[in-house]
Amino acid sequence: MITRMSSLFLRTLREDPADAEVPSHKLLVRAGYVRRVAPGGYSWLPLGLRVLRNIERVVREEMDAMGGQEIQFPALLPREPYETSGRWTEYGDNLFRLKDRKKADYLLGPTHEELFTLTVKGEYSSYKDYPVVLYQVQTKYRDEARPRAGILRGREFLMKDSYSFDLDDDGLAASYRKHRDAYIRIFDRLGLKYVIVSAMSGAMGGSASEEFLAEAETGEDTFVRSTGSGYAANVEAVVTPAPPAQPIDDKPAAQVHHTPDTPTIETLVAFLDKAGLGREFTAADTLKNVLLKTRAPGEDKWELLAVGLPGDREVDMKRLEAALEPRAVEILDEADFAANPFLVKGYIGPKALQDNGVRYLVDPRVVTGTAWVTGADKTDHHVVDLVCGRDFTPDGTIEAAEVRAGDASPDGHGTLVAARGIEIGHIFQLGRKYTNAFSLDALGADSKPIRITMGSYGIGVSRLVAVIAEQSHDEHGLVWPRGVAPADVHVVIAGKSEEIRAGGEQVAADLDAAGLTVLLDDRTAMPGVKFADADLVGVPTIVVVGRGLANGVVEVKDRRSGERTEVAVGDIVAHLTELVRG
Amino acid sequence: MITRMSSLFLRTLREDPADAEVPSHKLLVRAGYVRRVAPGGYSWLPLGLRVLRNIERVVREEMDAMGGQEIQFPALLPREPYETSGRWTEYGDNLFRLKDRKKADYLLGPTHEELFTLTVKGEYSSYKDYPVVLYQVQTKYRDEARPRAGILRGREFLMKDSYSFDLDDDGLAASYRKHRDAYIRIFDRLGLKYVIVSAMSGAMGGSASEEFLAEAETGEDTFVRSTGSGYAANVEAVVTPAPPAQPIDDKPAAQVHHTPDTPTIETLVAFLDKAGLGREFTAADTLKNVLLKTRAPGEDKWELLAVGLPGDREVDMKRLEAALEPRAVEILDEADFAANPFLVKGYIGPKALQDNGVRYLVDPRVVTGTAWVTGADKTDHHVVDLVCGRDFTPDGTIEAAEVRAGDASPDGHGTLVAARGIEIGHIFQLGRKYTNAFSLDALGADSKPIRITMGSYGIGVSRLVAVIAEQSHDEHGLVWPRGVAPADVHVVIAGKSEEIRAGGEQVAADLDAAGLTVLLDDRTAMPGVKFADADLVGVPTIVVVGRGLANGVVEVKDRRSGERTEVAVGDIVAHLTELVRG
Repeated sequence: MITRMSSLFLRTLREDPADAEVPSHKLLVRAGYVRRVAPGGYSWLPLGLRVLRNIERVVREEMDAMGGQEIQFPALLPREPYETSGRWTEYGDNLFRLKDRKKADYLLGPTHEELFTLTVKGEYSSYKDYPVVLYQVQTKYRDEARPRAGILRGREFLMKDSYSFDLDDDGLAASYRKHRDAYIRIFDRLGLKYVIVSAMSGAMGGSASEEFLAEAETGEDTFVRSTGSGYAANVEAVVTPAPPAQPIDDKPAAQVHHTPDTPTIETLVAFLDKAGLGREFTAADTLKNVLLKTRAPGEDKWELLAVGLPGDREVDMKRLEAALEPRAVEILDEADFAANPFLVKGYIGPKALQDNGVRYLVDPRVVTGTAWVTGADKTDHHVVDLVCGRDFTPDGTIEAAEVRAGDASPDGHGTLVAARGIEIGHIFQLGRKYTNAFSLDALGADSKPIRITMGSYGIGVSRLVAVIAEQSHDEHGLVWPRGVAPADVHVVIAGKSEEIRAGGEQVAADLDAAGLTVLLDDRTAMPGVKFADADLVGVPTIVVVGRGLANGVVEVKDRRSGERTEVAVGDIVAHLTELVRG
Repeated sequence: MITRMSSLFLRTLREDPADAEVPSHKLLVRAGYVRRVAPGGYSWLPLGLRVLRNIERVVREEMDAMGGQEIQFPALLPREPYETSGRWTEYGDNLFRLKDRKKADYLLGPTHEELFTLTVKGEYSSYKDYPVVLYQVQTKYRDEARPRAGILRGREFLMKDSYSFDLDDDGLAASYRKHRDAYIRIFDRLGLKYVIVSAMSGAMGGSASEEFLAEAETGEDTFVRSTGSGYAANVEAVVTPAPPAQPIDDKPAAQVHHTPDTPTIETLVAFLDKAGLGREFTAADTLKNVLLKTRAPGEDKWELLAVGLPGDREVDMKRLEAALEPRAVEILDEADFAANPFLVKGYIGPKALQDNGVRYLVDPRVVTGTAWVTGADKTDHHVVDLVCGRDFTPDGTIEAAEVRAGDASPDGHGTLVAARGIEIGHIFQLGRKYTNAFSLDALGADSKPIRITMGSYGIGVSRLVAVIAEQSHDEHGLVWPRGVAPADVHVVIAGKSEEIRAGGEQVAADLDAAGLTVLLDDRTAMPGVKFADADLVGVPTIVVVGRGLANGVVEVKDRRSGERTEVAVGDIVAHLTELVRG
């Protein structure tokens, strides 16, 4: 196939779009691959659509190869199944909801666990029917609070979502493993640099879960990995290693001190060090109590929650939210403090919290026998040597504290370092959340029902276009890996003479006849403009048909390395076929 | 590719679904191609999705061949462009509307004229850029009042919509012709029986327009064709031939008659024939005045409208609505009559209408000089010989009367006969409605702006699956044409012996190796069940591997004709390749 730039619906831009921050967004817009039409809504122009289709093809091939069967659901879905699963409410503002002309409630599907479960229930009945893996490549909708970075985080996007249905946990583990292997093949074929990290489950409920994160400085997801092992995890999934409990008996008694003007950890530590207590204090010796309110989905009432954590750590709201999901969580405001006068701002201690029935969760480092400096529930007063398990008893632990580079790895080997990535895939042992909700059973060999167990697995297909662009570009433009590029070869006619024009046309025709896809720059523009556009568009191999033609040669440029080779016109088809087919 | 029925996500049904009326709906559900998940919302199971993709491929190939360039828009669109074009309001209840988390208005796109126009405006500026044809194959949404017949009329469906942009009317005519030719190739390749009819424009505004209707007794669209020419038209598009005007001078004066108990045309005609007026009357001599109210999109106020038509014809509401579009129209109710006491029900005449400022439109047969019996605006009274152009002057004409078999063809050749069909394609010279709304101009060679003119062209891609099923089935099930069938060959292993099983596997493997797609029935079911399922599923060629294998033969059954041929196992690949590749 030959695509002529003289008639291609493509206008490259010299300037970065004003709203673009990350390279993929800038370049995909400048090179004419996508255009913004709404917040978080993009149109695919011809070259962009080709890259998207190429990625889809790789995903389909590997999903089919692992035994997945493709089906497709509507995006516009009735409320009822999502009401049954609880997600109608749990999804909160992220769900696009609407009413039809009869005022019936509908939603635009964010993922389709409910529908897949119901469909399997509708078709299958016997244990002999299982296992089955179904998938779709389908348009998804999420009303993101902050759509950003072009197609990296849109509100309408293309996703491959698949679901496995198994008779038992071993079956689920096998389906999970098959997906994991297929995902590795997909992302390898797409030439991506990525890491597989342990992950939290999000709003979907369940247990074992891993994310595939493409490494990218511009990524929204922070993850950590160990310097001493293969451990890698989403920050939300990091489990803080708890120190061993300590004996209580040898601890001095708790004592309240007048600590004037110490509303912050820094001022408190400075004060204590000068207070003649015979020891030095650090922020890590203090217990900071952060007051929050949380609310269950669909409820009106907020409940107070206090989180106690070592004073040298900040609360990481993403970790906190993940730990409390699906409850919404907010920091207390002035009105909340006013309504709860027992909360003495800057001097809150466990006693007032527990006396007033406030749920109190602590960082896993706050174990039995540890002694803390904390608020004495009275302005300008703190208590020293308040011992956990003796002077206060938390209601439980919570992963709310920030994870820092240098923290011990949860697997006991090495320390953590931070990196940034973009989620490209998610595999997840859902378990029986949905099969319980919809009573999906198979009739066993013994005629007894077997509750089916499920996995769900997603790949952000449209996002991958941006992720590949993010990982594969240079200062001149995009650099597509073969296999996803919008064409195999970009032929540039660099000259206005009839000979050069005819020569370029002939080269393009010969390459097309050999089965290669050709982008042919047959425009009347100056060669410099054409070269710049070829670099921007990013087809992996550029063939320049110019003055060398008089000597029977054309120039072959490797877009990635910039290397240029002169090739005899008669050899160009063989040369390119070798390059493209490997 | 071999698809094994032992693991295929397919369960055929013996019974028709309760909500199905048309054959395509019954069979597509029974054969496991689609499943209903919501009113007007269907999921595609594996075999259905394959047929859909095959149709998509044909559509894409022909759209690419005619020079169309594929792009893709979101389905979730902001209100503003549709506000600018007026369609936000004009589409009425058919549009799915929703709000995002910021309370901004969005819609689910029914078609994308606005976005295509804006996109071309964003990329193109010079007359040298034109013409261009852009298309997408994309999910569309319409909140149909009566979703019905499975995927024939859904609320979420796949459509190919394309748009041409030209510098002048000749260019538009050429783009229109290219689409028309491409559509003919597409529908011919899909093996459809169809007719091209003149059509009204619907809510999209504009002029020249044709519909492609698949012939189907179950079709929702009634169309007419001439017995004496190639004329064919959507009923809404039939233009009533107006008789020549008649001289007024020789007409007797209008006279009011007391006509007791004649509220209907029948009672009136019976009365007049006995009234000693010296002539016979028929219903066609009477002028029936039908009272309606109409309302412009977005307005609250209804306006009265009277339609006068020969008493032997009923109003065809679809023709009337099409003629008044985009205004809404309703028949007057009792309250309306009560509010307008000058309307004497059963005896309404032109005089009271025009005296009271009611807009009065008449059937095109009501020409100057024609004399009518009509209401005298007084109970039990009619006026005879009320002459158009002398005694009353309508505000214009309207196509509101029913079209009947036997009516003269508008082209003057032959008479009309009625038929039913399903709309599968629509081509439409939109003109400048949208380019005016969005000021889409090209800079001409003389540096003056040229307002671009547009065409819009649609094919109901998902609907085509049902339309093909509707035209191609028998009492045993579906009968897919080659090219759209979910597989090239259906191999049935008809026997439990190891030899037969191994033989069937080998035949399937050989056919697969030859590049054919194979559906292999390797289930343990009885042969009778398998044969019934093969007929139901409708792959064009069925290969039965059974007892004949002992003699070195398998049976090849043509699904359409039922013809069976014994073929030597060694010849099966050559035989099938010949059949499939033609």
